[in-house]
Amino acid sequence: MALIVQKFGGSSVADADRVNNVANRVVETARNGNHVVVVVSAQGDTTDDLIEKAVEINSNASKREMDMLLSSGEQISIALLAMAIEKLHHPVISLTGWQAGFKTNAEYSNSRISKIDTERIKSELDRNNIVVVAGFQGLNKYDDITTLGRGGSDTSAVALAAALNADKCEIYTDVDGVYTADPRIAPNARKLNEITYDEMLELASLGANVLHNRSVEMAKKYNVKLEVKSSFEKVDGTVVKEVADMEKMLIRGVTRDNDVARIAVIGVENTPGIAFKIFSALAKENINVDMILQSVGRNGNKDIAFTVTKNHMEKTLEILNDLKSVLSYNEVTCRDDLSKVSIVGAGMANNPGVASKMFEALFESDINIHMIATSEIKVSVLIKVDNAERAVQVIHDKFNL
Amino acid sequence: MALIVQKFGGSSVADADRVNNVANRVVETARNGNHVVVVVSAQGDTTDDLIEKAVEINSNASKREMDMLLSSGEQISIALLAMAIEKLHHPVISLTGWQAGFKTNAEYSNSRISKIDTERIKSELDRNNIVVVAGFQGLNKYDDITTLGRGGSDTSAVALAAALNADKCEIYTDVDGVYTADPRIAPNARKLNEITYDEMLELASLGANVLHNRSVEMAKKYNVKLEVKSSFEKVDGTVVKEVADMEKMLIRGVTRDNDVARIAVIGVENTPGIAFKIFSALAKENINVDMILQSVGRNGNKDIAFTVTKNHMEKTLEILNDLKSVLSYNEVTCRDDLSKVSIVGAGMANNPGVASKMFEALFESDINIHMIATSEIKVSVLIKVDNAERAVQVIHDKFNL
Repeated sequence: MALIVQKFGGSSVADADRVNNVANRVVETARNGNHVVVVVSAQGDTTDDLIEKAVEINSNASKREMDMLLSSGEQISIALLAMAIEKLHHPVISLTGWQAGFKTNAEYSNSRISKIDTERIKSELDRNNIVVVAGFQGLNKYDDITTLGRGGSDTSAVALAAALNADKCEIYTDVDGVYTADPRIAPNARKLNEITYDEMLELASLGANVLHNRSVEMAKKYNVKLEVKSSFEKVDGTVVKEVADMEKMLIRGVTRDNDVARIAVIGVENTPGIAFKIFSALAKENINVDMILQSVGRNGNKDIAFTVTKNHMEKTLEILNDLKSVLSYNEVTCRDDLSKVSIVGAGMANNPGVASKMFEALFESDINIHMIATSEIKVSVLIKVDNAERAVQVIHDKFNL
Repeated sequence: MALIVQKFGGSSVADADRVNNVANRVVETARNGNHVVVVVSAQGDTTDDLIEKAVEINSNASKREMDMLLSSGEQISIALLAMAIEKLHHPVISLTGWQAGFKTNAEYSNSRISKIDTERIKSELDRNNIVVVAGFQGLNKYDDITTLGRGGSDTSAVALAAALNADKCEIYTDVDGVYTADPRIAPNARKLNEITYDEMLELASLGANVLHNRSVEMAKKYNVKLEVKSSFEKVDGTVVKEVADMEKMLIRGVTRDNDVARIAVIGVENTPGIAFKIFSALAKENINVDMILQSVGRNGNKDIAFTVTKNHMEKTLEILNDLKSVLSYNEVTCRDDLSKVSIVGAGMANNPGVASKMFEALFESDINIHMIATSEIKVSVLIKVDNAERAVQVIHDKFNL
């Protein structure tokens, strides 16, 4: 008897019809002779609605109380899903994060799972119950409810699959798998049957919002077999695992990310420690920096350019302003009209022509490149946001994905 | 330093303004030099909205999953109230029922508090925190969330006051105290400064929906000093305690209850065990019977009449139908166009003229009495519902309350 962990996101349980649909999928899996643990998120807009209620009362509420508030969202959805499964006459029980044994570190709002005590879940499975678990939440050492932050429910599901040594962890989403590009942009994009953890990590961080990176990292660490599937259509999804069967494809996919602000610090002195001073100050404020480019500018001075997400732009500019006397730069410029377009694929590491082929595609379409960054398995360029969709298309075509 | 337990119901925390209002009241009490534990219910219509969501999915959901669902309502309100108190810069922490140590029996939906482990609350009070506790909920021996049923939050507050040996338990409601009659019906009704537990019990069971009986019974058992106060106006309320200062008032109040159905079993044999058979069958189905009247009818047969709440009428008729062969009655009649009007007061026990004075008031107003029941401290009559408001008025006037 196989043990399968299934995770359904907020849009998959947004209303009564969808909850019933999920119940049908889950019960079908159980009746096919599997033990099933289901992880669910809060319904549709519940989390946003709760945040709105909180902000109306106190826009600066403590993270502890926010976690107390938000965790009620998944509690509602596990109860409703359990009720829908009851109606299908299959034994079922819902468990909150703390009932399911999720222990986290002390931090609130963006907590890390430290351990899962699986006794309760195992005893419920032994009683032939489908176990419906609240994603996104756990309990810290103070017996306080914590939440796992963005992508938390995916992480809950993968961690549970690892702790239970499950045969598979199925992540159900709005899309039916991982594509070589966003099908809304590149109509001839095709679905991948398999992909490696590393490729998935690059794709996720590049804006293919199918799986959150934390969950993929954890799946890689514990070798959990993941499958990304559609909540609505019954078709095979994309399997994420250590070594993908080689499909002889150089490039796995083309992605686009519009949530990019480029900051350039122009004309800093060419002395050691400048980069350290900038990026440690940003790290202290929890600002993630993505692409970084350093160039020698005029008169021996340097320019340092980097990207952050748009919501961090203002704060970054403030920090750089505070550092003006330390860095003695000429000026700081910023742009938020750019988009990051990237190609990803383990195959490109040993294939020097890949980057230039991408640049060629952009040149042929008269798309100007504002910044370039490369890694072992990806090449990213910043281009004007108006060009982003077209860029994805022409790159996708160029590589015949 | 006094310890005060304050309880605010759902309408007192229905929206952001009201939550802020409650926060102000609570913080003021704390800044006046008191330790404060606040018990809150779910906001306004939250519970009804959640029940609606459940019914849409499964109108026959298990009580366990209903409790899982409904308990999220108070979790939302404790977090929001804590946030509002944070904004007023007073240390505060919210606790769910299980975090606050509420242990209940195993039953779901209508659970009884078996014990409160107060360590967590005490240590939070030692840290000078205002402690905001979710009413209506606890944890059973299976580590499952349970709810306390109707009036549960009042019961939570009183039980907590007893367990913490609090100096006072203040119940905040829509009204500013207990009145001699419903002021909407009898405009010259006046507020009582004090009332005994027993009088309060009779008033509550008679439809003066200020405090739930379970909470008054518990307050009496543990001698918890209760005060019923207004959430909105800052005026003295009504204190409920063992011995009220004698206000030399014969009658404490006049109440009306329209949720009454009268069932009459006509012409049963005059043999022993008939009443037992009827009422044990009803008890088995958890149907509470209120007034009971037995009379010898024609030909030596008996008639047995009694009242139940309207939602139990159909079920009661079914049960009596099933018992037809056992009871061999002539017929069963039922009426749901009646109202129960009662007078309550410890003073009447030694004052034989009270009942007749009430009947006199009704006679003078040409109001027909359909059934009478009396106890040590109350007299109740069933009259037509159309006459109920007028009856309350004329009785109130007759006794010069």
